[in-house]
Amino acid sequence: MAFPPSKAMASALAEARAAAVRGEVPVGAVVTDAAGNLLAQAGNRTRELRDPTAHAEMLAIRQACAALGSERLIGCTLTVTLEPCAMCAAAIAAARLERVIYGASDPKSGGVEQGAKVFSHPQSHHRPEVVAGVAETECAALLKDFFAGRRG
Amino acid sequence: MAFPPSKAMASALAEARAAAVRGEVPVGAVVTDAAGNLLAQAGNRTRELRDPTAHAEMLAIRQACAALGSERLIGCTLTVTLEPCAMCAAAIAAARLERVIYGASDPKSGGVEQGAKVFSHPQSHHRPEVVAGVAETECAALLKDFFAGRRG
Repeated sequence: MAFPPSKAMASALAEARAAAVRGEVPVGAVVTDAAGNLLAQAGNRTRELRDPTAHAEMLAIRQACAALGSERLIGCTLTVTLEPCAMCAAAIAAARLERVIYGASDPKSGGVEQGAKVFSHPQSHHRPEVVAGVAETECAALLKDFFAGRRG
Repeated sequence: MAFPPSKAMASALAEARAAAVRGEVPVGAVVTDAAGNLLAQAGNRTRELRDPTAHAEMLAIRQACAALGSERLIGCTLTVTLEPCAMCAAAIAAARLERVIYGASDPKSGGVEQGAKVFSHPQSHHRPEVVAGVAETECAALLKDFFAGRRG
């Protein structure tokens, strides 16, 4: 595999760290195709773009669709440092991503395992494979440090 | 009010009809501010943009945020012809829209009254006022005619 899952998560973490430097909540995401090629990588840019939809996952999905010239990401994997919120989870289903790999769970805002549990309803027309807890400690530490620094 | 709710829904319906002409699922949305001024209007462009996130509501929210230079649409109303899906509902909450007015319910893909019921969970950090069923017959007929035409 050209871009194995551990490398994908390392890239997502690098995007999250770059987001923190920009003063954004540190979440990063990458999209890889079925062969493991990197299609897109993005960090959270809601503040910079003044756009509440500019979560890392949304930017990565839109980038990957542009790269493939398709509104469907068949066979692709999205790797993200934090459990997607309901908006991003529904976008993942709409894009027909085959797999979502994420790091830290998000009891406060998550929409996959928590709250809306977007993939669990028939109104979600696609249910990706979900792999949670990859590099969880490192992903969670980034967020914890960021918010601790803000309070300091 | 410069742009009363009925006028907002008329504009959303016009956007939905224009989307149908472009071969898109006919959904239209507008954002108005607290004084009733029109901030943004958009129709569904998922096919044209090859972007699964390019729902009418998402485009209108992003346009309105750009118009105000803010990632929060405090005091604003989103008027849309169809019940928002989970992605759009969560974006509405993220944008802190005060009110959502929609036309037709969407048992198949809706995320407000159906399925994910995005606003009903504590992970949704904002719960807008929801007004459903405005110009419902007209909004639903547009969709029905569009899909009937596709099967024809």
